[in-house]
Amino acid sequence: MRGGQTDAVLGRIVIDEVRPRTLTGAFPAKAVVGEHVRVSADIFRDGHDLLAARVCWRPAGTKPWSEEPLATTGEDRWEGTFEPSTLGHHEFVVEAWTDTYATWHHKIATKVGAGQSVELEREEGARLLESRARKVAKEDRGILTAAAKSLRADTGTDWDRMRPALEAEVAALMAGPAKPAAVTRSKPQKLWVDRERALVGAWYELFPRSEGGLAGTRTRLTAIAGMGFDVLYLPPVHPIGRTYRKGRNNTLDPAPDDPGSPWAIGSADGGHTAIEPSLGTLTDFEALVQRAHELGMEIALDYALQCSPDHPWVTEHPEWFHHRPDGSIAYAENPPKKYQDIYPIDFWPAAEADRVALWDACRDILEFWIARGIRIFRVDNPHTKPMAFWAWLIADTQEVHPDVLFLAEAFTRPKVMAKLAEVGFSQSYTYFTWRNERWELEEYLTELSVGPTADYMRPNFWPNTPDILSGPLRGGGPAAFRLRLLLAATLVPSYGIYSGYELGENEPASESNEEYLYSEKYEVKKREWDDPRSLAPFITTVNDIRRRHPALHRLRNISFHRSENDNIMAFSKRSDDGSDVVLCVVNLDPGSTQESTLHLDLEVLGVAAGEPFEVHDELTGDAFTWQGAHPYVRLDPWVAPAHVLGVRGRVTA
Amino acid sequence: MRGGQTDAVLGRIVIDEVRPRTLTGAFPAKAVVGEHVRVSADIFRDGHDLLAARVCWRPAGTKPWSEEPLATTGEDRWEGTFEPSTLGHHEFVVEAWTDTYATWHHKIATKVGAGQSVELEREEGARLLESRARKVAKEDRGILTAAAKSLRADTGTDWDRMRPALEAEVAALMAGPAKPAAVTRSKPQKLWVDRERALVGAWYELFPRSEGGLAGTRTRLTAIAGMGFDVLYLPPVHPIGRTYRKGRNNTLDPAPDDPGSPWAIGSADGGHTAIEPSLGTLTDFEALVQRAHELGMEIALDYALQCSPDHPWVTEHPEWFHHRPDGSIAYAENPPKKYQDIYPIDFWPAAEADRVALWDACRDILEFWIARGIRIFRVDNPHTKPMAFWAWLIADTQEVHPDVLFLAEAFTRPKVMAKLAEVGFSQSYTYFTWRNERWELEEYLTELSVGPTADYMRPNFWPNTPDILSGPLRGGGPAAFRLRLLLAATLVPSYGIYSGYELGENEPASESNEEYLYSEKYEVKKREWDDPRSLAPFITTVNDIRRRHPALHRLRNISFHRSENDNIMAFSKRSDDGSDVVLCVVNLDPGSTQESTLHLDLEVLGVAAGEPFEVHDELTGDAFTWQGAHPYVRLDPWVAPAHVLGVRGRVTA
Repeated sequence: MRGGQTDAVLGRIVIDEVRPRTLTGAFPAKAVVGEHVRVSADIFRDGHDLLAARVCWRPAGTKPWSEEPLATTGEDRWEGTFEPSTLGHHEFVVEAWTDTYATWHHKIATKVGAGQSVELEREEGARLLESRARKVAKEDRGILTAAAKSLRADTGTDWDRMRPALEAEVAALMAGPAKPAAVTRSKPQKLWVDRERALVGAWYELFPRSEGGLAGTRTRLTAIAGMGFDVLYLPPVHPIGRTYRKGRNNTLDPAPDDPGSPWAIGSADGGHTAIEPSLGTLTDFEALVQRAHELGMEIALDYALQCSPDHPWVTEHPEWFHHRPDGSIAYAENPPKKYQDIYPIDFWPAAEADRVALWDACRDILEFWIARGIRIFRVDNPHTKPMAFWAWLIADTQEVHPDVLFLAEAFTRPKVMAKLAEVGFSQSYTYFTWRNERWELEEYLTELSVGPTADYMRPNFWPNTPDILSGPLRGGGPAAFRLRLLLAATLVPSYGIYSGYELGENEPASESNEEYLYSEKYEVKKREWDDPRSLAPFITTVNDIRRRHPALHRLRNISFHRSENDNIMAFSKRSDDGSDVVLCVVNLDPGSTQESTLHLDLEVLGVAAGEPFEVHDELTGDAFTWQGAHPYVRLDPWVAPAHVLGVRGRVTA
Repeated sequence: MRGGQTDAVLGRIVIDEVRPRTLTGAFPAKAVVGEHVRVSADIFRDGHDLLAARVCWRPAGTKPWSEEPLATTGEDRWEGTFEPSTLGHHEFVVEAWTDTYATWHHKIATKVGAGQSVELEREEGARLLESRARKVAKEDRGILTAAAKSLRADTGTDWDRMRPALEAEVAALMAGPAKPAAVTRSKPQKLWVDRERALVGAWYELFPRSEGGLAGTRTRLTAIAGMGFDVLYLPPVHPIGRTYRKGRNNTLDPAPDDPGSPWAIGSADGGHTAIEPSLGTLTDFEALVQRAHELGMEIALDYALQCSPDHPWVTEHPEWFHHRPDGSIAYAENPPKKYQDIYPIDFWPAAEADRVALWDACRDILEFWIARGIRIFRVDNPHTKPMAFWAWLIADTQEVHPDVLFLAEAFTRPKVMAKLAEVGFSQSYTYFTWRNERWELEEYLTELSVGPTADYMRPNFWPNTPDILSGPLRGGGPAAFRLRLLLAATLVPSYGIYSGYELGENEPASESNEEYLYSEKYEVKKREWDDPRSLAPFITTVNDIRRRHPALHRLRNISFHRSENDNIMAFSKRSDDGSDVVLCVVNLDPGSTQESTLHLDLEVLGVAAGEPFEVHDELTGDAFTWQGAHPYVRLDPWVAPAHVLGVRGRVTA
C-alpha cells in the first residue's frame, strides 16, 4: 500500500460542515420556492494564500449548474445564498480555490505600503494577467494585456501608477479559478424544494360534524377565509366504528346517538377512502375542496393509520394486525391503559410480501385523496409508525406529487420529532403550547431557527388543539387568547388554531388533564359564531399583517432584542431581501400592564445608529418616530398583546 | 420508481450520532491501548417497545467481533465501553433490537400491578420462552421450558407465583435479539488505537547545543529522567544553514560564531537526515537514543519541513520550491515580513510526478529516523503544509509503524487545529499558554474533554516553549512557575516544559513580544542546574503523582466543582475503572493566599453523601477527613499552588 497517494479523501482545500444539511446527511435539507437558501461551509487551506468560493446548484436531473458567490464571515466560515424556483429535488456543491490574483494583489499592496521593492511582484502580476488573457473572451483580452503592460512599464513603487491596472474591470476578469483542476469540491448536498405553503400558512381546524357536515362546512368556509386563513384542516372524515365507541368525555358507555371519535376509523360503511355518512358524500367533499380553491384556501386531511374493530381491513387483511394467542386482534394498549376502540396496524408483519402490500395500501389511501384535490395531510401520531415507512411513503408520494405536504402530529421526545422531519415530513407540531416564559420562548425559537434542525424541520405553532388546552388559556380570558395567537402567528411562519379559539373556549377536562371538558372529539358542538365578543376581528387583523409582511414568511430570520422586564419580549424578523423588517414587542403577561426600556440591536433592524426612524404599529395603526436603541414601551393587555411594528428605517425628515 | 421499498436507508430502529467519531467521519477517531473507549449513540424506534443495544468491535482485518452492552442514559442516548488491546485500525458498529422479552416483562408486570387479567400475557410469555429454548444450549433449555410451564400453570394474577419464571437466569438466556434479521446496525465506525504514550506523557524540551551536544545531552538525560519525564524532545539536530543565518535575538547580522537557528535546516554538511557537526555524529545520536531507552524514556525529534538556502534539496530538487520570475527561489514571506533564511517547500508542484517524489522524500526522512529508534515526531508548523499531505504521510507511516506518534505544533485557528488532529496527528499543542482565568480554563477544558473534538484531538499542555513566554510567567516568580506546571500536569494527561523552566527563566524579549530575551533559538545557553532554588524537586513530585494516579492518565474524565472564589478552581478526575479519584483544588493567583468554600459533587467523587471521607494531599503529605460537600480551603501560593488530593472514598472509622 505504500507510496499510493491518489486515494486521498482531501483536496487542496478543506471544505467541511456544509449547510443546509440534515443530521445524518442521508436525507435532503428543505427549502421553499423563492426562499433565499443560505449556504455555508468551513473553508480553509494551509498557509496565507487567499481563497475564493462559490455554491453551484441545480434541480436534480438537470445539466447546467447555477453559481452564487460565497464570502467569508470570519473564523473560516463562508456564506452565500441561492434562490430555487422549481419544486422537487435539488443538489448543490461548494467549490473553493486559491485566489491567485487576490493573493498577489494583497502581497504587492502590502509591500508597496511598506516601501519595499516590488519589481518581481510586478512581473508576477503581469504573467498572471497574461495567463488569464489567453482564456477570456476576445473583447476582454485587451484589458488584461494592457494591465500587464502597465505593470511592467515602471520599476518604481508608485502605487498610483500601478493601480489603474488593478481596477474593478480587471479584478472581475481575474475572478474564478485559474483551471478547474485547482478547484476543491464538497460532496454534493441534497435539498428538497417545496411550494411556499410548506413554510408559510395560517391553519384553521374544525370538526365538520359541528358545522352541519361537509355541506355546512362549505358554508362556514367563507367566514374562515374572511379571517385570512390559508388552510382548513379536518379531523378524519371517514366512517366511525361502532365497537367500543367512546361516549361524551371519553367515557366507555356511549349514548345511542353519540357520534364517536373520528379517529376510530372504519365501519361497515368503509375505511380510509370512504366518507362518514352523517357528514355527507364524496360529492359533498369534492364540492368543499372546490369551494376552498375558489376562496384561495385548501383543505388538509387527517391521515390516521389505525383502525376501529369494524374497519374493512380487519377482516380483509388480518395479517396487517397484531394477534394474541387466542386468535384475537390486539387493541391498542399502553399498560395499564387500554384503547379497545382502536386496532393499531402492524407496520412490519413477519412476511415481507405482507409488509409491501400494507405499505402500498397506505400509499393508495393518499393517492385516493390526492386524486380528489387534497395536497396537505396532517399525519396523526407518526412516531408510533416506523421511520423507514415514512421515509419511503413521503419520498414515493412526493416523487409523483412534489406539491404534497405532510404535517407531523408528533408530541414526543426531541430526537424522535427531529427524525420525523429528517425522513421527510414537511412540517412539525411543536412544544410551543408549553412554552410561555420569555427565556423558554427565546431558547426554543433559537433552537428552531438556527439550531441544527433548522435546515429541515419546519415548526407549525398551535396555541390549542382538540387534545391540548394548556398554559394561560386554561380558564383564561380574551387577553390570554390574543397573546398566544399573536405569538404563534408572528414567531414562526406557520401557525394554526382549533375552532372555538375565537370564542375563548377555556374549560379544561380537569385540573390535571390537558383535554377540553366536553371535548368535541366525542360530541357535536354548537357555537355562536356571531358572538360580539368573538376574537375574529383580531385574528383577521393578525392574518392580514402576516400576509402583508414578507418578514413574517421566514423561519430562520428571527433576532431577539433585550428588554429589562422578563414579561416583555422583543424580537424582529427581516425579509430575505432586507426590504421588510418587523419588530414585535410582546407583553407576555395577559393579566397586567407591563413596561420596559428596550435595548434594540439597530443593525439587525437595518436602522442607522443616531438617526431617527419610524415604526408603524400594525395592530393599532399608530406611528412613532424613535431615535436610538432604547425606546420605552408600555403594553396594556386589554388593549393589545403587543406592538407589531413595521420598521421604516431612517426617517427622511 | 414507485413501489420499490427495499432501498430504504433506515432499518427498523434508528441509530444516529454514534461516537466516537471525527467531524467528517472520514478519518478514524482515536483511543489508546487499555483505554475504556466510551461508545454512545442515539437509539430509538416507534411506539413503546423496549430496546436493547450493544457495541461490536474488532481490530480491522480480523474476523470475530467482541461485544459489550450499551445501556440507556436517558433522552434516547445509549452508552457503553470497550477496551482495545492492540495497536492499529479498529472498527466498531452499534447494534440495536427490540427486546421482546423485556417488553413483555414490563407489560405483564404493569398489568399485574393494576390487577388486570394477564391470561393472554402468560401464554405470550410461555411462547417467547419456548421459542428461545429451541436456540439455546441443550443444558439451558430446561430452564426456559420450566419457566414456560410455570407461566401456564395458573390462571390467576399472583405475581409471586409467576416471578420465579422470570428471574435473572431466565432473563440472561432471553437476552440478545430473537433473530439476526431483527437487528439494526449502524454503519461501521473507524477507530485508531495508539500506544498509551499518545495520550499520557511528561515531555521535556532542550537544545542539545546548550548541553554540550548530543554526548552532553546523554549525560544530562539522567537528571531529566530523575525528574520523572517520559519524553525528551529535541529541536532539529540537523546541519544549520549559513546563508542569511540569524544572530542573537533574531538579528540579521550574526557574529562569526553565532550558531544560528536549528530550524534553518541544511548546509553543505547535509539536510534532514544529517547531524549538525557541532552536536556530534550519528553514532552520538544513536547512543543518546539508546541511553533514553535504558532510562525508560524516549527521544522525540523535530520534523520541520523547510530548508535553509544551503540545503542539498535546493540544488538537487529545485522543482520542489517556489520560483520567482528572475529564476530565484522564493524565501518565506508574510508581507511585509521576510524570512530570508528559510525556503518554504512547494508541497503541490505543478507536475504530479514531482509531487509524488517530494512526498516520498518527506516520508523517507521519517523512515531514516524511525530506523534509528525514533518513534515520536514533533511536527513544526504543520498548518503551513497541505492537509492532504499529512493525511497521506501519517496513514502511510503508521500502517507500517503503528507505534509512531506525531505532535502537531500548530498555534492557529481552532478549525485548522482540529482538522490536523482529524487527518491523523496523535497530539496537538493548544491554547493553554493563553488560558489563565478560571472561567476560560474551565471552558477550554470542557471543550477539549467533552466537545466534538474530544474523540480525536489530544491536547499536550506546555506552560512555555522556546517561542512562548506568556501570562504570569513573564517576570513571574517561582509560585507562578509552580502554578502553571501543576495545571498543565494535572488538567490533561500530556504536558511538557522547555528547559530552563525549572530555573524560573522569565525575561521576555520585550513588553509586546512573547519570545524570550536572548532566545536559545539563536545562541548557546549555559545554565546552573544545581541552583538550590531550582524547581526540580517540585517537578519530580508532580511527575511522581502523575505516575501513581491512573485518574491523571485520561483526558475525557474531568469534572469541575464549584467554588465561591474565582481564584480557586476545583476539578476532579476519575480512572477508567473508578478505583482512583484525584481532586485538585488550585489557587490561580500566584501572588496571594486565596480561600473559599467548595461545593463538591460528591457523586462524581464516588463519595456517599453524609459519610466522612479521607483526602490525602499528595503535594504536602497531609491527610484530612472531610464530611459533606462544602469543605473550606485556604491556599498560600508560597507553600503550594494546590491541594492535589487522592480521594479515598468513605472512611471506615
